[in-house]
Amino acid sequence: MTRSSPTPAIALHGGAGTIARSSLSPDQEKLYHAGLAGAVRAGQRVLEQGGNALDAVTEAVVALEDYPLFNAGHGAVYTRDGKHELDASIMDGRNLATGAVGCLRRIRNPIRAARLVMERSEYVFMVGEGADAFALEHGLAEVENAYFDTEGRHAQWLLVREEGGVALDHDAASRLAAKTKTPTDAGRKFGTVGAVAIDREGNLAAATSTGGMTNKHSGRIGDSPLIGAGCYANNRTVAISATGTGEVFVRTVAAHDISARMEYAGASLAQACQQVIMEKLPPLGGRGGIVAIDRHGNVELPFNTEGMYRGYARGSETPITGIYA
Amino acid sequence: MTRSSPTPAIALHGGAGTIARSSLSPDQEKLYHAGLAGAVRAGQRVLEQGGNALDAVTEAVVALEDYPLFNAGHGAVYTRDGKHELDASIMDGRNLATGAVGCLRRIRNPIRAARLVMERSEYVFMVGEGADAFALEHGLAEVENAYFDTEGRHAQWLLVREEGGVALDHDAASRLAAKTKTPTDAGRKFGTVGAVAIDREGNLAAATSTGGMTNKHSGRIGDSPLIGAGCYANNRTVAISATGTGEVFVRTVAAHDISARMEYAGASLAQACQQVIMEKLPPLGGRGGIVAIDRHGNVELPFNTEGMYRGYARGSETPITGIYA
Repeated sequence: MTRSSPTPAIALHGGAGTIARSSLSPDQEKLYHAGLAGAVRAGQRVLEQGGNALDAVTEAVVALEDYPLFNAGHGAVYTRDGKHELDASIMDGRNLATGAVGCLRRIRNPIRAARLVMERSEYVFMVGEGADAFALEHGLAEVENAYFDTEGRHAQWLLVREEGGVALDHDAASRLAAKTKTPTDAGRKFGTVGAVAIDREGNLAAATSTGGMTNKHSGRIGDSPLIGAGCYANNRTVAISATGTGEVFVRTVAAHDISARMEYAGASLAQACQQVIMEKLPPLGGRGGIVAIDRHGNVELPFNTEGMYRGYARGSETPITGIYA
Repeated sequence: MTRSSPTPAIALHGGAGTIARSSLSPDQEKLYHAGLAGAVRAGQRVLEQGGNALDAVTEAVVALEDYPLFNAGHGAVYTRDGKHELDASIMDGRNLATGAVGCLRRIRNPIRAARLVMERSEYVFMVGEGADAFALEHGLAEVENAYFDTEGRHAQWLLVREEGGVALDHDAASRLAAKTKTPTDAGRKFGTVGAVAIDREGNLAAATSTGGMTNKHSGRIGDSPLIGAGCYANNRTVAISATGTGEVFVRTVAAHDISARMEYAGASLAQACQQVIMEKLPPLGGRGGIVAIDRHGNVELPFNTEGMYRGYARGSETPITGIYA
C-alpha cells in the first residue's frame, strides 16, 4: 500500500484540572500560553529539521520540565517530607522500546533519564536511588533536590499539609487560590506534562514527566512512568501522554486501552478517546485528559476536566495553545 | 442472562525458563511439586471455605514467597549490591482495584504490602524506602534484608557477577548448573511467582511477586508490579499473572493485551494466549509464560520456554502440578 508521507505534528499538555476561567489573570494566562508554545516550538524545530518523533517529544518535555509553571522538573510539587520525587517515561512507536524512571531526586531532567534507561540499559524501568545513580553514572546533570523548589509550590504544600490531605497538583492549586483569594498567587501552578509526535516517516513517540501529587507519601508512583497507563506509543495505532488522577489511569491501563480499542475494535482515535476519557474513567473517579496523535496524523486533545493546558502544531504552522474547555 | 455459579479454581506459577528435564534430580522435582501443590492448596482452602478470589491469590502467593525454591520473598535473587529488592502486585477483578510495590527491602511478604497499598492508601503503587516505611507504618512484619538470603541464590549471584552480566533467575540457574555440573546444586532455583483465581461468585483476582533479575542494578523494576504487564484482573475478561523477560512484557503491556483481545476482538482465552505468548512476544525476545483464568472459569497455562513451574486445581480436586512442557 502506498502511503503519502504524513505531515509531522506535535501535541503536548501541561496538566489538566479544575482550571476556572476566573482563576487566572490575563498575565498568568499569557505565561502559560508562552510556556506551552515554547515547548511546542522546541519539538516542532526537531521535526522541521528532519528529526524523529522520539527526539521531538524529548525536547518538548525538557522545555516543559524547565518551565517553572508546570509540575515537572523545576516547579515540581512537594512530597510529605518536603522534597521532590520525579517520574517520567518515554516510548518509541517504531519498536515499542521504552524507558521510565520513578522517584528521582537529583536529576535535572527526568525525561532524559527515562531515555537513558531506554537506550543505555537492558531495563525499561528504574526507581529511587538506584535510578539517580544510574543516570549519574551515564553523565546526566546532577542538581540538588532544592533545585526543584519554587515558592508557589511550597505555599501549596503548606496548605495541603495543614489540611492533612494529599492532592493532585491542580486541586491544591485551586484550594490555595480559593483560600488566599489571590488568583495571581505563584502557587497556582498545575500539571504533569507530556508530548506526542509523528515525524515525516510516520513514526510515533510519546513522553510524560511529573512531580506527582502534592504532599504525597515518599515512594508513591502514579501513571506517568507506567507504560500503557500514562504513556504509550505504537506505530500501528497511536501515541498518547496522559494527565490526571493517575491511580485510575493505572487501574484502567488507559493509554493502552485506547490503542487496543483502535487495533482490535476498529475504533477511530476520536471514538476511542470518547469511550475511555469521557465514558470509562469518570465513573471510577478518573479525571484528566490526554494528548494523542494516531498513525494517520490525527490529533486529539480530550479531557473531562474544566481545563487542560495544551498545545499543538502541524508542519510549520504557528503553535495553537489552549487552557479552558 | 442466568449464569450458573462457576466452580472456584486457582492456578499459579513459580517461574518459567530453560528448565531442561535432565537438570533436575527426582528429589528436586519432588520439592518443586510439593511447593507448588502446597501453594495451590493454600488458595484452594480459601475458596472452599467460601472466601473470595482476592484472598485466595494472596494466600497462594504468600506460600510461594515463603517457599525458598522460588524467586520471591525468602529465596529471592541478589542485586548487584548483594541485596534483595522485591516487587509485587495484586488486582481485584470486581472493581479494578490494584496495589503494587517495588524495590522493597524489609517486608517479609511483599504481596501483603501490595495489598496494603490497595486497601489502605489512596495510591496504587509505592516503591523503595517509602514503600517499606508505608508497610511498616501499617503493621506488616519487618525482616532484615538478609532474611531473603539463601545459599543457592548467593552462589548464582557470584557466578553471574563473575561473568559480568545480568540474568533472569532461570538463566543464571542454568549457567550455574552447567558450570558446576551439579544439577542438585542449591542454586538451581527459578522463578517469579504468581496466582490467579475465580471464586464461587465469579470474581477474578491476580497476584504476582518477584525478586527480579540476578545481579540487577539497584532500582530496576520489571513487569511483575506493573498493572497490565505482569498482573491484571477484570471480571469482564480474565485474571493473569506473568513470568519471564519482564521488559518485553512491559513493552507489550502483555497481560492487558490478552484481556483487550478478548474484550474487543472477541478472542477466546486460548486464542488470546496463543496470539500474545506464542506469536507476539518471541520476535521481541519475550520468553516466559502466564497463568490465566477467564470469567467462565477456563484455565490456561501457556509458556514459550522449556518449562514453567505451575499448578492448578478446580473445586476440591487434588492439585495438578507441572514443570516441563
